[in-house]
Amino acid sequence: MVSRPFDLLNDAIGKEALIILKAGRQVQGVLLAFDVHMNLVVDDAVLTEQDGTEKKLGRILIRGDTVVLVAPSL
Amino acid sequence: MVSRPFDLLNDAIGKEALIILKAGRQVQGVLLAFDVHMNLVVDDAVLTEQDGTEKKLGRILIRGDTVVLVAPSL
Amino acid sequence: MVSRPFDLLNDAIGKEALIILKAGRQVQGVLLAFDVHMNLVVDDAVLTEQDGTEKKLGRILIRGDTVVLVAPSL
Amino acid sequence: MVSRPFDLLNDAIGKEALIILKAGRQVQGVLLAFDVHMNLVVDDAVLTEQDGTEKKLGRILIRGDTVVLVAPSL
Amino acid sequence: MVSRPFDLLNDAIGKEALIILKAGRQVQGVLLAFDVHMNLVVDDAVLTEQDGTEKKLGRILIRGDTVVLVAPSL
Amino acid sequence: MVSRPFDLLNDAIGKEALIILKAGRQVQGVLLAFDVHMNLVVDDAVLTEQDGTEKKLGRILIRGDTVVLVAPSL
Amino acid sequence: MVSRPFDLLNDAIGKEALIILKAGRQVQGVLLAFDVHMNLVVDDAVLTEQDGTEKKLGRILIRGDTVVLVAPSL
Repeated sequence: MVSRPFDLLNDAIGKEALIILKAGRQVQGVLLAFDVHMNLVVDDAVLTEQDGTEKKLGRILIRGDTVVLVAPSL
Repeated sequence: MVSRPFDLLNDAIGKEALIILKAGRQVQGVLLAFDVHMNLVVDDAVLTEQDGTEKKLGRILIRGDTVVLVAPSL
Repeated sequence: MVSRPFDLLNDAIGKEALIILKAGRQVQGVLLAFDVHMNLVVDDAVLTEQDGTEKKLGRILIRGDTVVLVAPSL
Repeated sequence: MVSRPFDLLNDAIGKEALIILKAGRQVQGVLLAFDVHMNLVVDDAVLTEQDGTEKKLGRILIRGDTVVLVAPSL
Repeated sequence: MVSRPFDLLNDAIGKEALIILKAGRQVQGVLLAFDVHMNLVVDDAVLTEQDGTEKKLGRILIRGDTVVLVAPSL
Repeated sequence: MVSRPFDLLNDAIGKEALIILKAGRQVQGVLLAFDVHMNLVVDDAVLTEQDGTEKKLGRILIRGDTVVLVAPSL
Repeated sequence: MVSRPFDLLNDAIGKEALIILKAGRQVQGVLLAFDVHMNLVVDDAVLTEQDGTEKKLGRILIRGDTVVLVAPSL
């Protein structure tokens, strides 16, 4: 059971997740860390731009205020 | 009776809700959790993009500052 | 007499109001509750999108930072 | 003499003012009240949308963070 | 010598200034007052919209968070 | 060595710098002062608009939250 | 192992990184410093504008709230 929103991030550590960002970007990768600002570290990150182009970025830090939603993989 | 806005979220836990986000996105799913920033956890989430495409995302965390409104299902 | 802005919201509880939101949306309904962030609960809410399409949403929570203005019905 | 910006709002209470809002909207009406967030209550408010259409809204609450400038009538 | 940014505003009180605002607007007028939020009172204000149309507004209050830059006249 | 970001601004006082602003504007001039909000005073400022038009503005105050980056001249 | 998001920035000091900024800009360079606001100092910075044009800027300060993500080079 998830009783607080950040529990979902905690449960997703070490797992694949899709992160949708503002301005039409999204990142797929393995969630490694997060903080109270929703800053995220994602490993093996693949960034998809609004026009569909993809870029492999490795391990990245995503600034929390650009996040729209985080969807751990099913 | 709803005397404070977050009472509506509390009453909606475990129920279907439509969440309208900034930039023309919306999410339909079951509200599982929320916090004071209006961060939301939604289960069985279906994201509809501005162009109408749908994506099933499972259990997701929505960042509060992207929320426009929350409408628990009638 | 209205001496503080939130007095207008207080006087509008239980009455019809038009709420204009950012990004060209507006909501018509009965104001049920508000808080200091201007988060609003509206009953029998009808959402009008920028393109004029209407959607009946029932009882909803509107996030305060998306509000442009609140106009209780004349 | 105006020594602090909010003195101008204080002097404008009960007078006609033009309020320019973000996203190309403006409101003309009588300023009734304001607070430290620049939330404003305006009576006999006429809203002009970016496309020039006008709407009579009566007494309204304008959220401070949508205000660009306030011009009490000459 | 200007050792802190707000010293420039202090030195500009009573003088002509050009104020560039977000969304392509600018105001020319005499700076009368300011506060720590960069809210400004400008007298004999002339507003120029993005499309070049001008409007004489008299004495106005500009909300600080819409300011891009302030240029006291040379 | 720069150990904190604002050290770079401190080292740039009295020197030419290019300041890139949001919404496609940039300013070239001599950095005179800054504060913790990244508000900047720039002397002999030349503003370049997004369409390439230039305007000489003399000594200006730039609001910190419009800054994208500051590049002291090489 | 990265247990907190800013650990990734700490590990990236002195190394090449790609920094994606809002509004379609990106910067490639050597990360020299950062602070809690995610303000960054980057050396040998090359700015790429949304239209693909590049500009060598040397040592720059990037304002934290314009950052989308930081990707230290693989």
